[in-house]
Amino acid sequence: MQDERENAIQDYYPDDFAWCYGCGRLNEKGHHFRTTWEGEKTLTVFMPKPEHIAVHGFVYGGLVASLIDCHGSGSSSLAFCRKNGREIKAGMEAPRFVTASLHVNYLKPTPHNVPLKAFGIVEEIHPKRWKIDTEVFADDVLCATGEFVGVVMPKTFGKSS
Amino acid sequence: MQDERENAIQDYYPDDFAWCYGCGRLNEKGHHFRTTWEGEKTLTVFMPKPEHIAVHGFVYGGLVASLIDCHGSGSSSLAFCRKNGREIKAGMEAPRFVTASLHVNYLKPTPHNVPLKAFGIVEEIHPKRWKIDTEVFADDVLCATGEFVGVVMPKTFGKSS
Repeated sequence: MQDERENAIQDYYPDDFAWCYGCGRLNEKGHHFRTTWEGEKTLTVFMPKPEHIAVHGFVYGGLVASLIDCHGSGSSSLAFCRKNGREIKAGMEAPRFVTASLHVNYLKPTPHNVPLKAFGIVEEIHPKRWKIDTEVFADDVLCATGEFVGVVMPKTFGKSS
Repeated sequence: MQDERENAIQDYYPDDFAWCYGCGRLNEKGHHFRTTWEGEKTLTVFMPKPEHIAVHGFVYGGLVASLIDCHGSGSSSLAFCRKNGREIKAGMEAPRFVTASLHVNYLKPTPHNVPLKAFGIVEEIHPKRWKIDTEVFADDVLCATGEFVGVVMPKTFGKSS
């Protein structure tokens, strides 16, 4: 399943910050998580690959954690832009966030072979520190919840390439 | 870096339960995390691949979360066996745990290109429910801490192959 949705925030990360294994568009081997607005919530959609299993038929929990992580940083970036009146459009450079903490509660086994949808509710807890509460659905079944706290990435970060 | 340590618990998971993307020995595309005793602590060692980055020079946080997750389930299995007097040896079938919750605190950026070492302290909070407190070091630098809570996997789980 190719995620064709427009205006995912990860499409606008500066090239130096687009290498994340989870959500970097330039990381050829990565997951390419992409996060958009969905009304007042944020949304990341991902179809797990065949190898992304815990046991046959169920998704690997580490992948769910990774999804919640990048969904959180993407959602923070979307919200940061909205708050500051910055439109998501060609030529803009979206701010990157780094994860301070990540909590995941696994409510039930996540079935494999269906798209995962992570919906986020964004909360600013400081101008540079954001919290994203996330619910992960497999089809329409709520399988996990997560809390991401992230901070704006220092400008010196990631310049060592 | 090939992890050559003997008696990793994942070497003794039954074949049906050895497909985990994080730690299953039969998942060709997975990480192959392997967990052993290290004195009274448990230890998982992993060398991130080139693509496992957040930005150039630093490890992807979702990989750190995945490491803590499988390290937790492996540590739980090791401790469950020790408590029940089961020796880790050829022919034994190690119990599998599933994750109930996973918490990760990212203390500092995790440098890439050095081995990660996850050390765990095991606590039984119920005969079928275990907690693993983990510290993740890159070389000798403490980069993240984590708390895993897992439960013994139901016997019906993973039989759908």
